[in-house]
Amino acid sequence: MSETRTLRDEALHLDAQDPLAAKRREFVLDDQTVYLDGNSLGALPTTVADRLEEVIRHEWGRLRIRSWTESGWWEASERVGDRIAPLIGAAPGQVVVSDSTSVNVFKAVVAAVRLAQSRDPGRDEILCDASTFPTDGYVASSAARMTGCALRALPPERIAAEAGPRTAVALVNHADYRTGQLHDLPGLTSALHQAGALTVWDLCHTAGALPVPLDAHRVDFAVGCTYKYLNGGPGAPAYLYVRRDHQPDFDSPLPGWNSHADPFGMTPDYTPAEGAGRGRVGTPDILSMLALEQALTVWDDVDLDAVRAKSLALGDLFLRAVEAYAPDGRLETVTPREHHRRGSQISLRCPDARQVMDKLIARGVVGDFRQPDVLRFGFTPLYTSYADAEQAARTLAEVLG
Amino acid sequence: MSETRTLRDEALHLDAQDPLAAKRREFVLDDQTVYLDGNSLGALPTTVADRLEEVIRHEWGRLRIRSWTESGWWEASERVGDRIAPLIGAAPGQVVVSDSTSVNVFKAVVAAVRLAQSRDPGRDEILCDASTFPTDGYVASSAARMTGCALRALPPERIAAEAGPRTAVALVNHADYRTGQLHDLPGLTSALHQAGALTVWDLCHTAGALPVPLDAHRVDFAVGCTYKYLNGGPGAPAYLYVRRDHQPDFDSPLPGWNSHADPFGMTPDYTPAEGAGRGRVGTPDILSMLALEQALTVWDDVDLDAVRAKSLALGDLFLRAVEAYAPDGRLETVTPREHHRRGSQISLRCPDARQVMDKLIARGVVGDFRQPDVLRFGFTPLYTSYADAEQAARTLAEVLG
Repeated sequence: MSETRTLRDEALHLDAQDPLAAKRREFVLDDQTVYLDGNSLGALPTTVADRLEEVIRHEWGRLRIRSWTESGWWEASERVGDRIAPLIGAAPGQVVVSDSTSVNVFKAVVAAVRLAQSRDPGRDEILCDASTFPTDGYVASSAARMTGCALRALPPERIAAEAGPRTAVALVNHADYRTGQLHDLPGLTSALHQAGALTVWDLCHTAGALPVPLDAHRVDFAVGCTYKYLNGGPGAPAYLYVRRDHQPDFDSPLPGWNSHADPFGMTPDYTPAEGAGRGRVGTPDILSMLALEQALTVWDDVDLDAVRAKSLALGDLFLRAVEAYAPDGRLETVTPREHHRRGSQISLRCPDARQVMDKLIARGVVGDFRQPDVLRFGFTPLYTSYADAEQAARTLAEVLG
Repeated sequence: MSETRTLRDEALHLDAQDPLAAKRREFVLDDQTVYLDGNSLGALPTTVADRLEEVIRHEWGRLRIRSWTESGWWEASERVGDRIAPLIGAAPGQVVVSDSTSVNVFKAVVAAVRLAQSRDPGRDEILCDASTFPTDGYVASSAARMTGCALRALPPERIAAEAGPRTAVALVNHADYRTGQLHDLPGLTSALHQAGALTVWDLCHTAGALPVPLDAHRVDFAVGCTYKYLNGGPGAPAYLYVRRDHQPDFDSPLPGWNSHADPFGMTPDYTPAEGAGRGRVGTPDILSMLALEQALTVWDDVDLDAVRAKSLALGDLFLRAVEAYAPDGRLETVTPREHHRRGSQISLRCPDARQVMDKLIARGVVGDFRQPDVLRFGFTPLYTSYADAEQAARTLAEVLG
């Protein structure tokens, strides 16, 4: 019991000193639940419901069609993109919000292949990380089929070495959805550029959990969802980053009327817009988009270095507590312990992981299960407390014991 | 003045006898506005705001991740599709809601080309109507480029004659967005089938305005938006119809994890789901989706033949009133007068259309302007009254006079 008391005390002490502690009050949470699934669906920011009511009752209900101009609906894709930009290390004008992550992967990979081939027609290979979130692999496969490329799935640590004169682009997850491992964005981007290849990074599991330095490392393209660490709501629209100097050459496979230079000219010929808006397609889901816009206001005063520091400290505490509490030999830690190789989730493995997670959820500790035997615990520094981390480990030990 | 009084009296008489008159109370409208832009953005159904508040505060806010199963979020694409199905003459299990119309055009046209070529590899041509809504043409052009096909844009009345042994598919708008002309879905579908070609119909300007007989005429694929006559809200997700017997062969260019047979198996290989869900891609925008689902409840007790009858009667009254009131020679009627060639909008032409529409809107009559010289007036039978139609014509005459 002394170890329990010690770690519990330490957690409470860390919470008392946490510079982000006040942020928790900006989310709808309840005291009966330890919510460690914000890496799947972020909690609801407290101001979103009122904002959506205004959007529905006033902007749609009263102004109707006028809201496309008077309420700024038309520009929302770029405006919300600019709200996300600082969270992913991007200067304004390079991020657009529209469509799902999967659809944005398709845009980015096809456009990257076209750009690479416009410089060197012999580049006919797409690389991806073999442990990718499935949709990235499925969509990359379709992009390869439709551009006449081959797709090679590689362990991420081999991508740098395998990239060569035939590589057009590599699509890589910044953090692995199952293991929580953080991949080396600066090093891999640099290696791919050295090989003459372009990069598409999938930021679903890092944006909002740690600083993502896109501009600083001259990443070419990136995509990400907004419903995990960005708390945009279920299925909130995803984003696409196109580095500014690539924008004039961004040749989208989905040239919808929203990305036309003069959308209301309604001309039969497609002339793409300048800027990030070139990544738009059709009319975006405005209700979901404006919920996301409101949700992003929680980031206005947040220091991403503080987020990263807390994320790692939460994971460290959780891992120590699991080691202290859990029966020996029941769990294997999947996520690397080294800080520079870890995102913001801790994954543990046990043969009966599905049953264990069901029991945890029944006791109010909400993580999730991933095939075949992985328990995932996501640490969202804006609202996860150290006490949450310690309690989760304690409950896990009870379930296992 | 006698003509004015007569038409006004007639309008009030028609409203008094209108079997759909009570439906108007199910929408948020105001007495200061004659809203004739429901063919661009449908009015807000009265119950949507409360439903979205419940979705946000309870399903997202309290249940969080559990709502993917407990609140039925995961199945929403198919469930909402089945709500749309009867409005477009489709038996259940053939319609899925997801993504924008543009993205669905891409899925449908590419899948149609693949299906046509699997039967006859020599079919390397895509046809579309030359006056198509621009996004359809842009996306069809991309689909042609990516499948090695040629795209030919033709006047719709020539598509039947021009379809031949090289035609894989024709993408046709059921009603022309600018002129309001209704195209002959049964006849054109039959002619294309005779030529061995497949059909993709764009229903954006007809679904919810008139009966659309997809199953009855063995249409192959169809797409449509949900924010016009279906009142789903700004940018509400679009739908894709895949005829049941084509589903096993539907080879989507956007194979996201949501359309996998076992999405949570998260296997590296893509095995498409059975059924309409094969048309899904990534995670859909749930807030917009559930607003649409609620909006569709207004159709529960609606007879589409009554909708069509009222739509035509509204247009007839409007045209008669415009002729009676407007100065001679100022306007040209663009929309065909014959009922079987007319959708649910009346388009008029005058050189100063943009200025005329601005003045109309300033006087509370909201239609819209389309390049280069077209005034559009949309008649949405669930909430447009005959008095609205008469008042719009009267105000138009005042503005022109």
